[in-house]
Amino acid sequence: MNVILIQPDEWLDAGCGEIEFSDRRFEYIRKVHRAAVGDELRVGVINDLLGTGRITKLDASSVRLAVTLNQAPPAPSPASLVLALPRPKVLKRILQTATALGVKSIHLINSYRVEKSFWQTPFLDPAIIHEQLLLGLEQCQDTRLPEVYQHQRFKPFVEDELPHLIHNKKAIVAHPRNTPTPFPAQLSDPCVLAIGPEGGFIPYEIELLESIGFSAKTLGPRILKVESAVSALLGRCL
Amino acid sequence: MNVILIQPDEWLDAGCGEIEFSDRRFEYIRKVHRAAVGDELRVGVINDLLGTGRITKLDASSVRLAVTLNQAPPAPSPASLVLALPRPKVLKRILQTATALGVKSIHLINSYRVEKSFWQTPFLDPAIIHEQLLLGLEQCQDTRLPEVYQHQRFKPFVEDELPHLIHNKKAIVAHPRNTPTPFPAQLSDPCVLAIGPEGGFIPYEIELLESIGFSAKTLGPRILKVESAVSALLGRCL
Repeated sequence: MNVILIQPDEWLDAGCGEIEFSDRRFEYIRKVHRAAVGDELRVGVINDLLGTGRITKLDASSVRLAVTLNQAPPAPSPASLVLALPRPKVLKRILQTATALGVKSIHLINSYRVEKSFWQTPFLDPAIIHEQLLLGLEQCQDTRLPEVYQHQRFKPFVEDELPHLIHNKKAIVAHPRNTPTPFPAQLSDPCVLAIGPEGGFIPYEIELLESIGFSAKTLGPRILKVESAVSALLGRCL
Repeated sequence: MNVILIQPDEWLDAGCGEIEFSDRRFEYIRKVHRAAVGDELRVGVINDLLGTGRITKLDASSVRLAVTLNQAPPAPSPASLVLALPRPKVLKRILQTATALGVKSIHLINSYRVEKSFWQTPFLDPAIIHEQLLLGLEQCQDTRLPEVYQHQRFKPFVEDELPHLIHNKKAIVAHPRNTPTPFPAQLSDPCVLAIGPEGGFIPYEIELLESIGFSAKTLGPRILKVESAVSALLGRCL
């Protein structure tokens, strides 16, 4: 928890800049940070500014902070992510990772090699997704929550929605094999990155993506886990 | 398991190109791959060539492959890794990830913010490390095993050993804060990357690294988990 995140409706008194809480942020401040009254911590308001919170009260049950907000959150990643739904345990980590790497728009999609059962996981519950996004923001000291969308049908999503999402953007599908074109070393303009499931997109899926304007690019001959691929690809957008 | 890896001493008969096994590779071939006699699988000999293995026998207890070796493993990463020892669970994943990304030399080092207890983990046992390296090679279809070294004392390692390791190489320490110089978009020449623990190297450690020739570079203002940083940094060496 590299930043204490505050909900916009959490102020003790409108405009006074004080908050008090006793949840897992309090536990962190007390047990991990071992903070004391007077200490200053990094804070941020969800979808708003970053700043500092000075501890004005700390007892066995809660902490109170006097908050000053004075800094914009870091620039978002230029990349939106289109990701074949990974297996549930990996999904949680990837949501955190993509958030920490600054992605603001994540589309979880179906694909031939996505196991049907993955769509049944409780980890797709909006509350659990929200938790992962918060953990990602807390990791990277950002405040802007990503949007996460779920698309259980590949073809309608790619044909009807994806063309709008990639309008005026570079659209790249990461394709480990049979693609001689290397992935760009650095991406700073708005782009959409599509990443397939373990085993990759099938040829039909790659062709459909190419037909709407995606280019297939490779990071080389090594087959990476989806999680490593996400970090390696988004790492080129930092 | 994107490649079936064979130990160099596993041949049924010197020069005949056949092997037979009943271990987890067999379980994989039977249960996950659901292969049958006549199917061809990707195989590789540890620290040697890649090729194909045709299934010549498959029953409830073992599988036999006729192996043809004809392809060099993928080029190694130009990067060697100097990594502050991560917490045990993360260590296992990072060893796999760094191996999959092609690193051939990994130095696990101490640092002020490495918890002493991390050095007590059974995951540092050479047999368990070897397992992770194999999993990494199997993921990325490589055969060349990395070397993993453990250095429990920071200063002697940095002063006495590291200067030899970085001789004639670019040496970069990833430092998330207070470093205006961006990490290179692409690295293709031999280099040594040092990555700190959660919370980063302390100023004394950065200074000592700089004093022997390291440059501190940043991936930007976002604080990343060590695991994401490893993939993002090594992803620029692909």
